[in-house]
Parts: sequence; C-alpha cells; structure tokens
Amino acid sequence: MYSESMSTPERLIEATRELLWERGYVGTSPKAIQQLASVGQGSMYHHFANKQDLALTAIRRTAEELRATAEATLGVEGAAYAKIASYLLRERDVLRGCPVGRLTMDPDVIADDELRAPVDEMIAWLRGRLAEVVRQGVRDGEFPASLVPEEIASTIVATVQGGYVLARASGSPAAFDAGVRGLLALLAPRT
Amino acid sequence: MYSESMSTPERLIEATRELLWERGYVGTSPKAIQQLASVGQGSMYHHFANKQDLALTAIRRTAEELRATAEATLGVEGAAYAKIASYLLRERDVLRGCPVGRLTMDPDVIADDELRAPVDEMIAWLRGRLAEVVRQGVRDGEFPASLVPEEIASTIVATVQGGYVLARASGSPAAFDAGVRGLLALLAPRT
Repeated sequence: MYSESMSTPERLIEATRELLWERGYVGTSPKAIQQLASVGQGSMYHHFANKQDLALTAIRRTAEELRATAEATLGVEGAAYAKIASYLLRERDVLRGCPVGRLTMDPDVIADDELRAPVDEMIAWLRGRLAEVVRQGVRDGEFPASLVPEEIASTIVATVQGGYVLARASGSPAAFDAGVRGLLALLAPRT
Repeated sequence: MYSESMSTPERLIEATRELLWERGYVGTSPKAIQQLASVGQGSMYHHFANKQDLALTAIRRTAEELRATAEATLGVEGAAYAKIASYLLRERDVLRGCPVGRLTMDPDVIADDELRAPVDEMIAWLRGRLAEVVRQGVRDGEFPASLVPEEIASTIVATVQGGYVLARASGSPAAFDAGVRGLLALLAPRT
C-alpha cells in the first residue's frame, strides 16, 4: 500500500488517517491499521503507546492539512463574498465526507477529551476564521450590518458538514452542491 | 432497561434504535443489542434474521418518527418563514445528534443499499417538504423570487445536520444554535 521509503511510523500514521476517514475510530482496529501499513503488532507498539496515541497523531495531521486548505481559500486578497464562495466551492471528495467532522459522530472520540480536542480546535478555528471574513464583508457593506459574523460563520461550516450528510444519504454529490448554492444565494449581496 | 410488558421483538427494536443512535451500526454488536434488550441470542435470531434485518426495522421506525416530528412543525397553517423557524428551533437533543443523519457516516450503512434506503428516503422527503414551504414563501413574496426552493431546502437540512457536528465537536449546543440563528437571519425578509 505505502512506499517502501516511508518509515514505519509514517506508514502507521497514514494508514490510521485512511481508516479513520473511511471507518471512524470505533470501526478501526489496531489489526486493520497494522495490515494496511504492513507493520507488525510489536513494531506498532514500539512506536505508539496504543490506538489512541496513534489516532491522536493522525487526527492532528489531518486537521493541520484541512486548516491549510481552508486558509488557501480564505487568506487571499479579495471581497468577503468571493472568499466564502471560494471556500464553499473548492474541490472536495464530497462522498467521502470530512475526515475531521465525521469523527464527531464517533462515540469513543466524543467521550475522550484528548481525542476530541484536535477536532474541536480545527472546527473552532474554521468558525473563527470565517467570522473574520464575514466581519470584513459587513464592514465593507457587502453584507447587512444586522448579520452576526459568528452566527453566519457557524451556518457556513454547518452547511458544509451537513452537505456531506445529504450527499452520502443520497449517494450523490449533487445534494452537497445544492446546499452550497442555496447558502451562496442567501449570502449574495442583494441589489 | 425496558418494561416487562414489552414483547421480545419490541425490546430488540428499541435497544437497536438506542445503540444505533449512540454508537452507529459499525459500533453495535448483536451481543450488545441482546444485553440491552435482555434477550438471549437464540431468541433474537428467532425474531430477526440477522443484525441487518433488525437494524432495518429500527431505522425505519426512527425515520418515521422524525418525519412525524418534522411534519408537526411544517404542516401547520402559517407563513413560510414562521414554519421554517419552527422547524429549525424545535427542541432537539442536540448533543446526541440526528439518529438518521448520523448513519450516513457509517461505512457499513452506506455500502449496503438496503440499509441506506430508509436514510435516503427520510432525508429526501425532508428536503422535498421544505422545498414546498420555500416555494410557498417565494409565491407569497416572503422570499426573493431568485431563490431556488430545492437549494434553500438543502441548505436548511444541511445546517441542521452540520449543526450537530459543530455542537458535538465543541461539546455544547451553542454552536448548533449559532448556525440556526445565522440561517434564520439570512432567510429573514429584508425591508
């Protein structure tokens, strides 16, 4: 599965990221990780204390990547609406869902403060970052002054996260796209 | 756990609904169902062919309940915005999430057309029902004629489903409420 040039810990982390995205924490056994990474049990426990330790490393890396991807659409020069549209319309593997957001449906992640922390931080960061952009839009007169930036930011993140639910239920990315287009129509400056 | 007056199949169905909501399909073993229902293994397989058969009955019942709950807020007389607000603001066990929507993150549900069907039907019904309400609002001049009812309906369902993700990530229903308030502000008739 993974290149021979990858170190054993790297292969374990990448296999864990893959399995957490596909099957969640509850659905991922240490044995499945070892098989996908082509790493023996002893070697896995040499590098990581347990499944939780390895998952924590994997989740942190995935969250870091998502943050960079979001920042690439939001951290550019431009109007607020254009930034939000760019964030919402960026290419996504819609039917796979969000590798971080999906963990919130995992009872063992939510029950474990340490595992929940990077999920919470990532989503809180995104809401804060989008609130800054909405604030800019209100200041520049693109959005009505009556809008509360933190609320609109939460609506944007929720539409994306819930869009994955719609798409996966229907087996088609079209439902995700419809939700995003609806939100963009509501956000569009009215003349 | 369950009343002695409940029949064995009833106890099995209710236990399965509970566990599917809490732990998902992948995280629910036949043994856990039997324990929660206080039903022996032989008795479970006397009434249901397997875990999939039992889960199908449980998911259908949960979907039917959710449909009735939604209809209670949307099927009343009144203005479109008021109906949507009533749907969005109805009391929810936010931190538990949606018992149907959460199943979309379950790889074994999504991979199984039979198990996915009641999830798909419930969410498709809700999107269609909300689209009718939005259409009414456009016709009555509450919403701009430029809005596409099916898109706005998808945004509404996505905001609710994604709101659960935000709430569970942060460990607080406040994030759900913020997303809903943001959407209502965007939908509010502007003067």
